[in-house]
Amino acid sequence: MALPHRLGQESILNAYRKSIGQRRHELTTPALILDLNFLRQNIETMAAWTRRHSKVRPHAKAHKCVEIARLQVAAGAVGITAATVWEALAMACAGLDNILIANELMGPEKLKRLAESARETKVLVAVDSSAAGEALARAAVAAGATIGVLVDIDVGLHRGGVRTCGEASALAAALSRLPGIALRGVMGYEGHVVMEPDRALRARKAAEAMERLMGCLEGLEHAGFEIEIVSAGSTNTYDMTGAHPRVTELQAGSYVLMDATYAPLTPAFKPALSMLATVVSRNERTAILDCGTKVMAMDLGPPAPVEPCAKIRAVHEEHTLLDMEDHERLRVGEPVEMIVGYCSGTANLNDVYHVVEDGRVVDVWPILARGPGRSGVV
Amino acid sequence: MALPHRLGQESILNAYRKSIGQRRHELTTPALILDLNFLRQNIETMAAWTRRHSKVRPHAKAHKCVEIARLQVAAGAVGITAATVWEALAMACAGLDNILIANELMGPEKLKRLAESARETKVLVAVDSSAAGEALARAAVAAGATIGVLVDIDVGLHRGGVRTCGEASALAAALSRLPGIALRGVMGYEGHVVMEPDRALRARKAAEAMERLMGCLEGLEHAGFEIEIVSAGSTNTYDMTGAHPRVTELQAGSYVLMDATYAPLTPAFKPALSMLATVVSRNERTAILDCGTKVMAMDLGPPAPVEPCAKIRAVHEEHTLLDMEDHERLRVGEPVEMIVGYCSGTANLNDVYHVVEDGRVVDVWPILARGPGRSGVV
Repeated sequence: MALPHRLGQESILNAYRKSIGQRRHELTTPALILDLNFLRQNIETMAAWTRRHSKVRPHAKAHKCVEIARLQVAAGAVGITAATVWEALAMACAGLDNILIANELMGPEKLKRLAESARETKVLVAVDSSAAGEALARAAVAAGATIGVLVDIDVGLHRGGVRTCGEASALAAALSRLPGIALRGVMGYEGHVVMEPDRALRARKAAEAMERLMGCLEGLEHAGFEIEIVSAGSTNTYDMTGAHPRVTELQAGSYVLMDATYAPLTPAFKPALSMLATVVSRNERTAILDCGTKVMAMDLGPPAPVEPCAKIRAVHEEHTLLDMEDHERLRVGEPVEMIVGYCSGTANLNDVYHVVEDGRVVDVWPILARGPGRSGVV
Repeated sequence: MALPHRLGQESILNAYRKSIGQRRHELTTPALILDLNFLRQNIETMAAWTRRHSKVRPHAKAHKCVEIARLQVAAGAVGITAATVWEALAMACAGLDNILIANELMGPEKLKRLAESARETKVLVAVDSSAAGEALARAAVAAGATIGVLVDIDVGLHRGGVRTCGEASALAAALSRLPGIALRGVMGYEGHVVMEPDRALRARKAAEAMERLMGCLEGLEHAGFEIEIVSAGSTNTYDMTGAHPRVTELQAGSYVLMDATYAPLTPAFKPALSMLATVVSRNERTAILDCGTKVMAMDLGPPAPVEPCAKIRAVHEEHTLLDMEDHERLRVGEPVEMIVGYCSGTANLNDVYHVVEDGRVVDVWPILARGPGRSGVV
């Protein structure tokens, strides 16, 4: 079946663009709203901090949006971090340069596409096995490109990364013998630390993780490897990890949008992302809203209603159930706004950001490389 | 910024279509795989059952796919159920007729779009308040259309629906006085029952829910309302609720794709949906796969690895951590398949189904009306 032409993504974007000029609460719901002032504040807060400490290479997984990445780079970011080849390609297609994929990669098409983009864009990839390094090298050679690599070191998350400094040195040696790739540094993401609510404890755990990373770094330098990049850090540890003298750059992402889960841990950044919904049903106790897990990710926590004294009872696929103290508030048809619970997963579920300034939509920004990744990239 | 033309959704679909002819395990990962034989079996199992009992109006929320809906209608489904206006429009645009939106609706654009489509397509909507009925009537009159309505009765889920039979009768009376809408029946979705693992207890709870629905139905008929449609049921209660002599149609959805969560409760249907991933990192204990919650919804439960003796330790945003008994299995670069944990949410996260028969991709079917709903609809 041939799809009708109106299924084009440009048409989708044009449909959303009709909301430009509308008031925040007039939008067709559910609508993901990005407060431009808070976004700018968050970018400036991070920029001010990085002028005095390590640099930031903001993680695009948190927003998947070229327009946001450009603002971050304009404010001094050294480049962009990506979780997938498709996020990296989306950024590279839009002219952003110096992109780190902070995950291990395998698969012929993905490596080929990455290697081809590396002919025009500076690309870095995390590697934790010689098998992955060899596959990357083959793709780089076939494309006539050079791909930079960071040795990924497990500093406690126990996901990717080599487990010991011995392994790190052996891998670095193997990688530096391969054609088409260039060893540029190390990476150690302390993801196991970032949700620790006690700030002092979080700082101690982050310091321990960095000690592991630095141990391996010293070993590599002792063995004669030149280490230019030391990448680590997250939004909730930016001012801990990023203050370490040997960390050259942070891969924090969430700070730019923030959310109801991260904001209490790192109040320096302001939640800029909210979901607008409409009350579609009401009984004495509960207002039923027309948004649920198909537009709001709950990986780390639920959204937070802006409405005072309203409490989330449940979030279903297409509904949020909001228990109300005041029986007269939130009648059928009224708009309701909630701070997004988890920005990265929620961005992945939505087509666009409705960019709002002074209460009105001033622009609509597409969200790219969603789900399996081809959306907006091909 | 104008987006480059390659961002078109048709281009996305064409990119995926390049996989047609590929072997199941050669696909670029993560890839959502639909086993055509199991899909056909599930459709036939439901069709055989509904030939002897109530009819089925399959819920498109479970698949968001025109091609699947067409197969269901060809096998005897009376129409299609949808969760949102956008799902309904996606189905209507593809020529599917007789569509029930089994949720309350509000919002001027959505009601306008629905009313306009009701000029060409038979449309039914659940209503539980006179405010929603009046808004629907205004939109129908403005579009010169008639929209059918079902009085939504809360049979225990406590989400939408009127709470008492008195309210149901009062609402039916109010609705039948409104222009542009036609009272066609009642709906009572027993969503609070469907995850009860004990089949006998589930059957008893479903029967109790139907008793509530029938009580209100009798009240309405006693008051002189003509009730043509009585809609209820889900995949896990299809042979309970659907055996009730007064239930005219089921709104079951998941049965057609099934998943790791529903299959143990309702083994008559076979899991047809799986996620293909690649091992991107490996240590002694764990294989790290390149798929996570950005392509697999975890609302009801995790995916189930096909690989024997492999156990899900965690599902992160872009990774699944698979603990392995056998240290030699699943090396870096190998493909891994998992039965999807929850089909409806997972479909919502993916661009297409890779339709597989006899081990090869035979077609690629787009997934429409994802997230906020405009994708593939506009």
